[in-house]
Amino acid sequence: MSVLQGINPNIRKMKQLEYGALASRANQIKEELRKGVRRHYKEVIDVSWGDSHRAGVKPLTFVRQVLAACVYPPLINSNNLPLDVRQRAQKQLGTCAGGSVGKGYACGISEFIKRRDGGIPSQPENIYISAGSQWSIGNILHVLVNSEASPKTGVLIPVPCHITTAVSITGLGAVTVPYYLSEEQAWALQVEELQRALESAKGVCNPVALYVINPGNPTGYVQSRKSVQEVIRFASEKGLFLLVDEVYQDSVYGENSEFVSYKRALSEMGPPFSGTVELASFHSVSKGFLGECGLRSGYVELVNLDPAVMNYIQTLFSKDSSSPVLGQIALDLMTDPPKPGDPSYPLYNQVGTLELYLLRTSQHYNLPGLSCPPIGGGFYAFVRLHLTPKSIQKSKELGLQPDTFYCMKLLEEGGVLTTPGSQSFSGPLGGAGTLPAGQPLINLNALKEKLKEL
Amino acid sequence: MSVLQGINPNIRKMKQLEYGALASRANQIKEELRKGVRRHYKEVIDVSWGDSHRAGVKPLTFVRQVLAACVYPPLINSNNLPLDVRQRAQKQLGTCAGGSVGKGYACGISEFIKRRDGGIPSQPENIYISAGSQWSIGNILHVLVNSEASPKTGVLIPVPCHITTAVSITGLGAVTVPYYLSEEQAWALQVEELQRALESAKGVCNPVALYVINPGNPTGYVQSRKSVQEVIRFASEKGLFLLVDEVYQDSVYGENSEFVSYKRALSEMGPPFSGTVELASFHSVSKGFLGECGLRSGYVELVNLDPAVMNYIQTLFSKDSSSPVLGQIALDLMTDPPKPGDPSYPLYNQVGTLELYLLRTSQHYNLPGLSCPPIGGGFYAFVRLHLTPKSIQKSKELGLQPDTFYCMKLLEEGGVLTTPGSQSFSGPLGGAGTLPAGQPLINLNALKEKLKEL
Repeated sequence: MSVLQGINPNIRKMKQLEYGALASRANQIKEELRKGVRRHYKEVIDVSWGDSHRAGVKPLTFVRQVLAACVYPPLINSNNLPLDVRQRAQKQLGTCAGGSVGKGYACGISEFIKRRDGGIPSQPENIYISAGSQWSIGNILHVLVNSEASPKTGVLIPVPCHITTAVSITGLGAVTVPYYLSEEQAWALQVEELQRALESAKGVCNPVALYVINPGNPTGYVQSRKSVQEVIRFASEKGLFLLVDEVYQDSVYGENSEFVSYKRALSEMGPPFSGTVELASFHSVSKGFLGECGLRSGYVELVNLDPAVMNYIQTLFSKDSSSPVLGQIALDLMTDPPKPGDPSYPLYNQVGTLELYLLRTSQHYNLPGLSCPPIGGGFYAFVRLHLTPKSIQKSKELGLQPDTFYCMKLLEEGGVLTTPGSQSFSGPLGGAGTLPAGQPLINLNALKEKLKEL
Repeated sequence: MSVLQGINPNIRKMKQLEYGALASRANQIKEELRKGVRRHYKEVIDVSWGDSHRAGVKPLTFVRQVLAACVYPPLINSNNLPLDVRQRAQKQLGTCAGGSVGKGYACGISEFIKRRDGGIPSQPENIYISAGSQWSIGNILHVLVNSEASPKTGVLIPVPCHITTAVSITGLGAVTVPYYLSEEQAWALQVEELQRALESAKGVCNPVALYVINPGNPTGYVQSRKSVQEVIRFASEKGLFLLVDEVYQDSVYGENSEFVSYKRALSEMGPPFSGTVELASFHSVSKGFLGECGLRSGYVELVNLDPAVMNYIQTLFSKDSSSPVLGQIALDLMTDPPKPGDPSYPLYNQVGTLELYLLRTSQHYNLPGLSCPPIGGGFYAFVRLHLTPKSIQKSKELGLQPDTFYCMKLLEEGGVLTTPGSQSFSGPLGGAGTLPAGQPLINLNALKEKLKEL
């Protein structure tokens, strides 16, 4: 077993994650700056992650106050915290049965989904909470992927798409079937391309599911109602299970952009779609304005699944004991926030104004040598670099992808840490390839905060 | 896909977890008591879980104070918290880079392991943090189990053993190979039985790993140094990977009982063992005196693994983003607790006195109709019920396992919620069977707290 050949062959197919060289260099530079070494910049701006707090975005006061009081209940009696915070903490602990909550919190989530979807019902028994959306996606994939099947199970995923999704799929013994988003059309998802991708899978694998992320990561593209309906029709026609990653649903700020959930669109389409298309929708406290990725909490809502299959899903989610309790509380706070009149409402409500900054920031990337389509939502800017042949040659000599080379220069000379697209995003069939290099990823939310400060 | 036949066949082999009927009835009774319905008891004592807080055990003040200050940093400037708590929170946040910590905390853990093992070195790069030990075990199993192999991969597991371990194994497409612990010898692990189990697997599966839990769950058996050495020799001889669940290592209170880690024993045995036997050791903040199972945090230390295999393990642990940050902080507090002289030391140190209660409690189960071997450590008492033929007949008529019937009566008439052994523990090959019914599981720690109160 100690030799590589002995391990699970599916694990060997996983692309290995390499956050290494850039992050290490950034740490070295930070250390040098601390010791007084002089550079053009005073600190490293880290916008390479989905974690905005890492780059200086402040957590929401209300959320942190309630959590602190839940962790250390004597604070509930302290006058230092607002009344609604203390009442909320008291209420949360009342539900907790001594600190461990289970599926109970899903009640609050179903109310949130119902409000979001204009009154379309949502049932707590169709909702599972887990330690973040990646975990939920992994559990649902685990049910869908038959690792013993021949041909192998296939899952359609977008390109670009964060590498972790592809890693989860290949790790379970399935094959990724890439469909390419259209950069020319602001990274739109096109049904003809889904059709092409599906045909490309013939003889290679047996596609059973279609993974969509809307609003897009890293693209920032927001699907229209019509686009969502087209995808649903396609999934219905081809008998595909829809895995819908909607973790950026609260981060839509483009003009004329609106978030329409797949569940809502499906319900509005009526029979036969509304009663047959199988759907899993994922959300999380990590993304959107809450940005609490360190708490690890998310949920999945399942639509139109067979009750017998639901029993197995229940077992899968139960076997990991509970999801982190403080994350569950944050999920409850996100889905049931302070209301007008509550002492914490005015401060909490200021979050909305962030959107204007984001909108403005997204126009800064169309500088000479850079281009970026308009961004409708999400957390990131996925910027194309127009590199000179000399720069590409230089990067080859150093054994680096051109975008990694650019990101390294941006770090050294500009003090900004970004993620090269070739490193974090999956490409061709099998999940082991890379995109044409040249696209660093930038966390807008974090960059905006830093620009305000500096 | 909507029909059960379409899903992953390994998922269909998983035993479905049923915490249902007893827990529902307990909730009904709690509700009735709240409404003033009179019974022989005033409240339901829930000792059915590994979560002691649920049953009224108080969390540790120091841990909760530091966490609250990390969650809501203005508390660091408050005079309401002890100085060492505020300093510690400041230090933790300093390491956090804005709230998200990665592998860095492993440094503190390796120091803890080194102290525990009498100076045997431990390297941070061999330690991974995750959202609890079940998750770590799942990741390591994922590497070891080849779901496409024929015959299937086998993993030796003890009987009794908590069902979640068996569910993880079968869910990945492997087969559980049971070895029976000896109730007559206080649930001792015997090498001859490992030998018998391994032989029983011939023609059925290809065993690659041996799972051991020491101190035992649910048995409370603590292995001697000699017993650990014997198991290591057996694993070495048979080429088995050792999965060692050591989450109860801080809960050893039996007379003449001592926790000796597998890593320490392995190191002390010297070559060829010390440099060849592959080992994964799991620990967690959920168990022992900390009891913070809601924070979801644990670690695994890997010994003697091939560096190429370690790279894949790194990818598996990285793909789930970080583990819950507050859990990581709790892990750091557990492995680096207050020292003599610190303001929080006197209170924190009182935890030690719990052990005496536990020791006394474990003798209460040898009443007429019940028997329980002496308990050396861990969290639970696994009690044999000597049921009358009439009682067994009655339970059959109700379609219940005899132990479930007993637990239901214990709840109805005594107000104590326990877990039937037949429900939560795995039996025969394949992980889908049950133990001979008749053994409810009782959380000692929680019961002790309740007995003090009532």
